[in-house]
Amino acid sequence: MRIDDLLKHTSEWLKGTGPNSNIVISSRIRLARNLSGLPFSHWAGKKQKEESLETIKGALQTSQFLKKATSIDISSLSSIDKQFLVERHLMSREHAANPELSALLFDDKEIVSIMINEEDHIRMQVMQSGFNLTESWRITNEIDTELGARLNYAFSSKLGYLTACPTNVGTGIRASVMLHLPALVLTNQANRVLQTITKLGLTIRGFYGEGTEVQGNFFQISNQVTLGRSEEEIIDGIERVINQIVSREESARKTMFMRSKEKLIDRIWRSYGTLRSAHIISSNETIELLSVIRLGVDMDIIKDITIPVINELFILTQPAHLQKMEKKVLSPQERDLKRAEIIREKLGG
Amino acid sequence: MRIDDLLKHTSEWLKGTGPNSNIVISSRIRLARNLSGLPFSHWAGKKQKEESLETIKGALQTSQFLKKATSIDISSLSSIDKQFLVERHLMSREHAANPELSALLFDDKEIVSIMINEEDHIRMQVMQSGFNLTESWRITNEIDTELGARLNYAFSSKLGYLTACPTNVGTGIRASVMLHLPALVLTNQANRVLQTITKLGLTIRGFYGEGTEVQGNFFQISNQVTLGRSEEEIIDGIERVINQIVSREESARKTMFMRSKEKLIDRIWRSYGTLRSAHIISSNETIELLSVIRLGVDMDIIKDITIPVINELFILTQPAHLQKMEKKVLSPQERDLKRAEIIREKLGG
Repeated sequence: MRIDDLLKHTSEWLKGTGPNSNIVISSRIRLARNLSGLPFSHWAGKKQKEESLETIKGALQTSQFLKKATSIDISSLSSIDKQFLVERHLMSREHAANPELSALLFDDKEIVSIMINEEDHIRMQVMQSGFNLTESWRITNEIDTELGARLNYAFSSKLGYLTACPTNVGTGIRASVMLHLPALVLTNQANRVLQTITKLGLTIRGFYGEGTEVQGNFFQISNQVTLGRSEEEIIDGIERVINQIVSREESARKTMFMRSKEKLIDRIWRSYGTLRSAHIISSNETIELLSVIRLGVDMDIIKDITIPVINELFILTQPAHLQKMEKKVLSPQERDLKRAEIIREKLGG
Repeated sequence: MRIDDLLKHTSEWLKGTGPNSNIVISSRIRLARNLSGLPFSHWAGKKQKEESLETIKGALQTSQFLKKATSIDISSLSSIDKQFLVERHLMSREHAANPELSALLFDDKEIVSIMINEEDHIRMQVMQSGFNLTESWRITNEIDTELGARLNYAFSSKLGYLTACPTNVGTGIRASVMLHLPALVLTNQANRVLQTITKLGLTIRGFYGEGTEVQGNFFQISNQVTLGRSEEEIIDGIERVINQIVSREESARKTMFMRSKEKLIDRIWRSYGTLRSAHIISSNETIELLSVIRLGVDMDIIKDITIPVINELFILTQPAHLQKMEKKVLSPQERDLKRAEIIREKLGG
């Protein structure tokens, strides 16, 4: 598969299917692993990085899950292509910023992606649509078992898996869930709910992970602690919290509909109208408005578009995606025009 | 004709036809006349008001223009009906506020309307669509000649026609033109242009005449002075000024299109999108947005609606019109819902 072919389909995690998909966009499990006897990527010399790269690639070629995967040499990519893969959540910005002797592998459905020589030698992630950490973990665990049989992982019987950053030591797992919480935000309950989450050892980030701001009422919630608990315990802990937040959001939606139905309908339809009519639109405004119309579709107020169309627009309207579609470098002003055009096209404006 | 029948058609002055109708909405001539030997309305007793009312009604019954006119006893009207007639520009707020022994006559096309026992015994107005003071004056003059032959007007050979307010003494004429100047406003030239107008002895008002604010880039421009010049000189003077403003607005539209085409298109389409989507909308927001889409139609950017539809919406979305259509009293909140509904219906949202 070529990178450009990705434009032709929607990533698995954006399909809008799976459990609680009206509130939970996607679920993701990420594991950090390193090879024993070689320094972590940032301290490794060229030869050592070559060694880890080749060793891991070799092991992946025999993997049941990844033998048909697309393998990409990051240093060969243009900056738009790198940004494009980040926008699709296939790799981290950290990985894009350190391309030398780094690789990325992903399957055709964009369920599994593996970064080689990121901060850790191996960062594997498995994504699913909806609230489905169990399935993500099942696949991750199988790949990890396969690779573990072929590679000599850096492991301490006392600490567990060793990683470049101490926050990942232990299981090396990060389970994260992307939530869409418009009703909690609109009824001013989001801050209180999220403060509680932080106290439970969970972290909140924006749509694009670490270091990104919350936009469009999207919250990525993940575990902070990876040490001293099993993977299943960690996943179980986050699942319980997410279930509670989902209930809160559901009841906030009901209350909002009962108390201010007309205002809500007005807001949803105005957002839809703006998206279908604008000729210049920023990325920020797009996410905010798409968030509102997603709520409208989830609440059966807007009936003529589907969640997959909205989800796809979140990604298609990102800067690198716009430039890949247009097949040329676009200035921010040109992107704002192109973005509006794509949205009108997809929403039949 | 019954008052309710007015809802079924568009007033002549809103037809969107006539010279320069892309910028000049309508032209209006108003004459003030009083009967000799009777005090002005505000100083008249009941008997005297009865006398002027009957005398003028009698004279109007034989008028070529008004023999088929609808005649209404203002004191018999509900407050919604009074407001409805004010919204249609058929009578003044002053007339609605002093209903006792007052009458209103108007023809089926709403070209001519005559108020009896307003501030002056007779206030006759003739409205035309577009820039057409000449035709308005021609009709006004004929009616005035007809009536003048049958009534004994209060007239001084030194001052001319005598009126309740000294600003109307002389010809008693007020020529006014409703202009739509969005480009001059958007390019920040309106203030300068309008300051010049004031220096030329003209007055600027909003859509609803005296004491109303400018909304939606609509400016009603009329003569201040009625004394010492003939009717034709007064009309000629205002026509010259209006011609200049029309040229200014036209060139501002061209410049704006050249310099910021995309921003303009974006703004026009977003306004259209909001109007077609909103479920709650105030009267103020409606006028502002209709103004922008009128510019869009005039500039050939929006092609699927016509000026008469937009013009009609300016009136249909007014409070009394909404209540007449709904056939009941509506609270401001209910009106905002109904207004949005009517707009969506008319614009196919």
